[in-house]
Amino acid sequence: MDSRRFGKYIVEREVLDEQRLEEITQRKTYSDNQSSLTERLKDSLRCTVPKLKHSIMSSLPVLYWLPKYSVWDYGMPDLISGISVGIMHLPQGLAYAMLASVPPVFGLYSSLYPALIYFFFGTSRHISIGTFTVLSIMVGSVTERLAPDVNFLIQNGTNVTAEVNITARDSYRVQVAVATTVLGGLIQVALGLVKFGFVGTYLSEPLVRAYTTAASAHAVVAQLKYIFGVSPTRFSGPFSMVYTLKDVCSLLPHTHLPTLVVSAVSMVLLIAAKELNSFISPKLPVPIPVELITIVAGTLISAYSHLNRNYTISVVGEIPSGLSPPSVPDASLFGEVIGDAFALAMVGYAISISLGKTFALKHGYKVDSNQELVALGLSNAVGGFFQCFSVCSSMSRSLIQETTGGKTQMAAVASSLIVLVTILKLGPLFQELPKAVLAAIVFVNLKGMFKQHSDIVTLWKRSKIDLMVWLVTWVSTLLLNLDLGLAASILFALLTVIFRTQMPTYSVLGNVPGTELYVDMETHREARDVPGVTIFRSSATVYFANADLYIEALKEKSGLDISKMIIYKKRQEAKQRRRERRAERRAKRQAKKERRVAHRAAKHLSGAPVFSVEEEAGSWRNTCVDGDVTDRDVTDREQQGCTERENGTVFIIPTTPRTPDRWEYLKGGEPDCTSLGSISELQEGDTTTLDSSSDDTLSRDLDSSSDDTLSRDLERISLGSLGKWSWDIHSIIIDLSTANFIDIVAIKTIRNIIHDFSEIDVDIYIAGCQAPVVEQLELGDFFSETITKRSLFVSVHDAVLYCLNHRGATSIPRYEPSVDTYDGTKL
Amino acid sequence: MDSRRFGKYIVEREVLDEQRLEEITQRKTYSDNQSSLTERLKDSLRCTVPKLKHSIMSSLPVLYWLPKYSVWDYGMPDLISGISVGIMHLPQGLAYAMLASVPPVFGLYSSLYPALIYFFFGTSRHISIGTFTVLSIMVGSVTERLAPDVNFLIQNGTNVTAEVNITARDSYRVQVAVATTVLGGLIQVALGLVKFGFVGTYLSEPLVRAYTTAASAHAVVAQLKYIFGVSPTRFSGPFSMVYTLKDVCSLLPHTHLPTLVVSAVSMVLLIAAKELNSFISPKLPVPIPVELITIVAGTLISAYSHLNRNYTISVVGEIPSGLSPPSVPDASLFGEVIGDAFALAMVGYAISISLGKTFALKHGYKVDSNQELVALGLSNAVGGFFQCFSVCSSMSRSLIQETTGGKTQMAAVASSLIVLVTILKLGPLFQELPKAVLAAIVFVNLKGMFKQHSDIVTLWKRSKIDLMVWLVTWVSTLLLNLDLGLAASILFALLTVIFRTQMPTYSVLGNVPGTELYVDMETHREARDVPGVTIFRSSATVYFANADLYIEALKEKSGLDISKMIIYKKRQEAKQRRRERRAERRAKRQAKKERRVAHRAAKHLSGAPVFSVEEEAGSWRNTCVDGDVTDRDVTDREQQGCTERENGTVFIIPTTPRTPDRWEYLKGGEPDCTSLGSISELQEGDTTTLDSSSDDTLSRDLDSSSDDTLSRDLERISLGSLGKWSWDIHSIIIDLSTANFIDIVAIKTIRNIIHDFSEIDVDIYIAGCQAPVVEQLELGDFFSETITKRSLFVSVHDAVLYCLNHRGATSIPRYEPSVDTYDGTKL
Repeated sequence: MDSRRFGKYIVEREVLDEQRLEEITQRKTYSDNQSSLTERLKDSLRCTVPKLKHSIMSSLPVLYWLPKYSVWDYGMPDLISGISVGIMHLPQGLAYAMLASVPPVFGLYSSLYPALIYFFFGTSRHISIGTFTVLSIMVGSVTERLAPDVNFLIQNGTNVTAEVNITARDSYRVQVAVATTVLGGLIQVALGLVKFGFVGTYLSEPLVRAYTTAASAHAVVAQLKYIFGVSPTRFSGPFSMVYTLKDVCSLLPHTHLPTLVVSAVSMVLLIAAKELNSFISPKLPVPIPVELITIVAGTLISAYSHLNRNYTISVVGEIPSGLSPPSVPDASLFGEVIGDAFALAMVGYAISISLGKTFALKHGYKVDSNQELVALGLSNAVGGFFQCFSVCSSMSRSLIQETTGGKTQMAAVASSLIVLVTILKLGPLFQELPKAVLAAIVFVNLKGMFKQHSDIVTLWKRSKIDLMVWLVTWVSTLLLNLDLGLAASILFALLTVIFRTQMPTYSVLGNVPGTELYVDMETHREARDVPGVTIFRSSATVYFANADLYIEALKEKSGLDISKMIIYKKRQEAKQRRRERRAERRAKRQAKKERRVAHRAAKHLSGAPVFSVEEEAGSWRNTCVDGDVTDRDVTDREQQGCTERENGTVFIIPTTPRTPDRWEYLKGGEPDCTSLGSISELQEGDTTTLDSSSDDTLSRDLDSSSDDTLSRDLERISLGSLGKWSWDIHSIIIDLSTANFIDIVAIKTIRNIIHDFSEIDVDIYIAGCQAPVVEQLELGDFFSETITKRSLFVSVHDAVLYCLNHRGATSIPRYEPSVDTYDGTKL
Repeated sequence: MDSRRFGKYIVEREVLDEQRLEEITQRKTYSDNQSSLTERLKDSLRCTVPKLKHSIMSSLPVLYWLPKYSVWDYGMPDLISGISVGIMHLPQGLAYAMLASVPPVFGLYSSLYPALIYFFFGTSRHISIGTFTVLSIMVGSVTERLAPDVNFLIQNGTNVTAEVNITARDSYRVQVAVATTVLGGLIQVALGLVKFGFVGTYLSEPLVRAYTTAASAHAVVAQLKYIFGVSPTRFSGPFSMVYTLKDVCSLLPHTHLPTLVVSAVSMVLLIAAKELNSFISPKLPVPIPVELITIVAGTLISAYSHLNRNYTISVVGEIPSGLSPPSVPDASLFGEVIGDAFALAMVGYAISISLGKTFALKHGYKVDSNQELVALGLSNAVGGFFQCFSVCSSMSRSLIQETTGGKTQMAAVASSLIVLVTILKLGPLFQELPKAVLAAIVFVNLKGMFKQHSDIVTLWKRSKIDLMVWLVTWVSTLLLNLDLGLAASILFALLTVIFRTQMPTYSVLGNVPGTELYVDMETHREARDVPGVTIFRSSATVYFANADLYIEALKEKSGLDISKMIIYKKRQEAKQRRRERRAERRAKRQAKKERRVAHRAAKHLSGAPVFSVEEEAGSWRNTCVDGDVTDRDVTDREQQGCTERENGTVFIIPTTPRTPDRWEYLKGGEPDCTSLGSISELQEGDTTTLDSSSDDTLSRDLDSSSDDTLSRDLERISLGSLGKWSWDIHSIIIDLSTANFIDIVAIKTIRNIIHDFSEIDVDIYIAGCQAPVVEQLELGDFFSETITKRSLFVSVHDAVLYCLNHRGATSIPRYEPSVDTYDGTKL
């Protein structure tokens, strides 16, 4: 180790507890500094006059950048980029409208209005707002659920024919899509205004990727009918995808061959052209608009060979030219679509903000997540009034917008112009376009999303829990559909945090020789235990869901079985009482004797021998009924002349054969020199053994009259299975440096630990609390007369040094707590 | 400070990074040590032969303690305690059966069988298994939902009369109660067998107390009809309590006065007797059975004055004597009651285990939470076959069992005998008991639960979040009823963990002078910042739900606006390129000149001045289009002779008026000596100012052609609002000591931070990761060729020392990173 490169770490200071640290650093409380959530909300909503200008600018970013727009510098790049994006908008708009189960022209509307709204409110300069696969399929699931074909069968007099009133159905579907979109947009605006932009982070990357993967599977299933030209039954609710898939499979023998041919040819051509494009695109200023060419070619072929008439291939049908006036959405539908609207709001935002942030970082500007939420929400809500369905930024279009040199949202205006021209003039030309071509475009565009299945392999290596999130999201989205699936996924993702903290690593820490560091003794071979002190740490915050596990782990790892210890203590106290009573009795007898000697003439009290030996033994038996001492044990020990000290401090040196445990492993076979409380006060022979004590103390309780060998054998077995149980520590240091917070259950737990262990004379110290945790301890009434900030140490090492100084460390063998151990001379 | 008492803290060692620490301590990975969840499950299910005996003993604890039972020692205390408890069982069984909406005799059954089952399987010696208020009301909500009166109207020929077929109704209600109980019991057994005893911890103390408080309110509302003698409509589902209460209130004018008199008298007597009891009970060996006396008195008065016949007061009615044979529950009901069964299983277990643990600790024995779950489950499941409804331990009876001297579960056998005798012989005597008396007993027994409302005050002081859990539990249980309310409460309690980690305290840490400690500079006045180094810590684990907030906070607290920095960097690079091109051009011109000189006779190339000044300026404008330099700026600087260095390292000294910030505050008004990267390489004049740079870089991008004063003013304003933005740090240390775990989103976040800051030559170091987190970093592919374990330091102080050694610390004013600063001489 080159210590010249890294330097020396030298510290010499007093041992610090929390109280002293606060004196030195003059701590204030966090509550002095921090405003509450409500205040922060108020702050964010408040709009003081000096801030007014700034807030107008930030809520309408276009006011800021448009006056400075340099047509000279940015005009041409934006125009080229806008045209490229506009050309992509056309096929995507038409195809994704089919995913949303609305007539294609509404896809074009969705490519037009929202992008213009975003132009005014958005803070990203490179994302292209418009139709997007996942959102379209989500809208489609709502429209088909609320407006299935079966609701629009044409009544012919009294008979119901199998014909569907497509006009009525489509106009109702548009209403449903619009209501969902407007509601989703309003939710986004509301979340943005209360600065809840952070909700996007609940959609973590594994979740979003799994969700989009599953959504693309939904999209594929939804498009199968166009690819094969069949008409499966429409299902809704959980498992609907499975049913649909089953139905499509059963209909495969009835595949409409001409349609399948069109689909297959389109797909092959598209894939080939895209591969070609990826080879030659670096050499071109703008990429080849493969999809537009496909659409135009498809339309031309279809129109000239009359595919629709000759082969009954389903085509796009009437596309009205011109814009339709704005109309108010049907608010009565809001109640039925609120779940989907929320899902749309969340997913749309998550996709847009992640793309926006990527470009912002690349080009060195800033997107404001709350303003983005408002901008996207307004795009949706206002767009909804113009019969748009839900939009967000599309990865493919945004990438084109950026790579073709787009500099600002002006590119979006250019692309909107392309779309506008199409709607006004060119739309009707696409009437003969086969739907199968659009389905093929959707299929080919989903290729990238299907590649995301490889995430499973990556996540398997990296993090099993994140893999679980991926799989749960994927499965639940596939089975429960896009709204319920998203809710279930988010819930599961949040609960993984609980799982993680519920199965933490509990460690007993040992000192790294020559340093002030403490590491897990199980995983670090060279860590040394501190005799007489157990240092315990959970890798997770202790709170209500794992507080019990924490106590169990502490008892197990420290090797202290509190219940048995307390019984032992009680037995000792009983003995103590008995001794005191005996002494008292002796004193009384003595006094009586003296009295007798002094007053020989007095009356002799022979009636009641108040303190007979028999009665005393009985009363002892009553007192220590919870103890585990047989009469014989007591007699034996009495005979051995084991006198107990008056002050009641009790020590055990285990003499029973013990299972190999961490102590032996770490001490490298040294004799079991156990460190004992106040050991210096010990006298020779002042030790007791617990070799007949057992795991199940109940048996001992009841053992005072029975003495069979079977039960003794059983006890030995259970003793063996118990592992280390001896009482060779005087202090436990609880390392709370990993605690993120502390709730009242955890506070109570630690208080209980301190109380229980104090019963058996083991001191508990707490180390490494960060300041917010100390403050929560204060608020939670943790500190009392017995538990003060003097029990809190700034680091584990401070606590260890204090323990060793405080608890007769000098008498502990093989461990010198003197300064020399840590002064680096051993390095 | 008495350093003799506390000792000195002296450490001298090399600075350690993670790699070196692992070498020293010979770390193994946790995965080497730990078994997976599935293995642990297998382990717990596996029953090897040597373990067989032990596992039989632990799954049937009675085999262990009964053979050793000393009749002599424990017989009498257990008998007395058992009789006391048995006497309590009678009124409680009768009264709580009414809560469960089944005939009273089934309450007696529930007091008999489950206690006997628990005798065999239970590990607690003091809890009294039997009917309990909360569980009874939960059962009652199921029975009344699935078997409302309206389903059992008697059909008289063709007319439906208003009379209810009580026999049919009650027998169906019993079936429902039994099915729920058996299912709940099976759930408990299953959870116990897979060692899921820890699920009880999800019911944290605030949650259970709020839940029982709300449940007692439900019980009160359910009993109001008996108190007032009215017949409100039965409601079910959410808000049913509100509707029922409303209905009862509207019926109050029709109160049946004799019933009200009986209720009122019973209640007054009970309360008075209980008060009296609490005064004199310390002087009595067993408490006065107030409730039994009330029941007996009530029965006698009712029987002799014919309350039922004369005043139409509702009485208990027929109580069959003798036991009924076991019968199989109706499994077809399971589907309808599974939610309630799960709620019953959870609540019953949570109440039993908390009582059991309390007594175990007091008396020094151990209850096994998984075995308790099995025992309770069997009591319910087997009890269900004998027409019992859900049971758990009752606080009141258990306390009596313990205080009257009960030692073992033998007391439960004694109490069961009392109940058995009552069922066999005395039951029919209670037929004339008015139901109002039983309702009064329920009311008075709920008094304690209503006192729990004072929790609100306690929690308000201690922990607002726990108070929120309490209130949400209370409100949701009141409104959504006992099953849905419990689910909502548990979910909310678990989500508070997310809330807590979503709003952590982000701190910039400063050094505590003379120590190796680092504390929050905002709350600790004496903490000193380390010049050139920002140490950043979140009080919570960084994971997907707060990773974005973490980055935002880091940027804000470090004062580094990455986006602007990157633009600045790009501008510098553009300048650099321009300089290089100019140099190249000069060199070419020179070459041309030389060539011209050398080949005067050669042809003159006059056509294309390839490197004209105009074209060069244009190409520069293109290159740094993302930068924020106006042409004038460049010209100005060129005129000032500000030459930039070739190696591209860039520094800013802010000269604009800055808002007061933490640096000025902490430096106590010292001049703004900013620490600069590689400052020693700086030449005089090699500094640039960013005084015309603004918050919104977009405006700068577009500013190269416009130059209006308004926009400049705006920039100044937004600059002022930005606070500190200068670039005076060369390293950021991320303190991850509070991280409980790290997920792939957090890993990506940190990788991004490292990448982004490296763009502006700020180094990122990580400090204080605990071993499990390091392992997760390894698994998550965090380490690469550029990010090694050499960037991970064992403590913040190690990282600081390394930074200062590594990044030209000698040139940093006012901060000597030499060993002397920390050697304690300043103490």
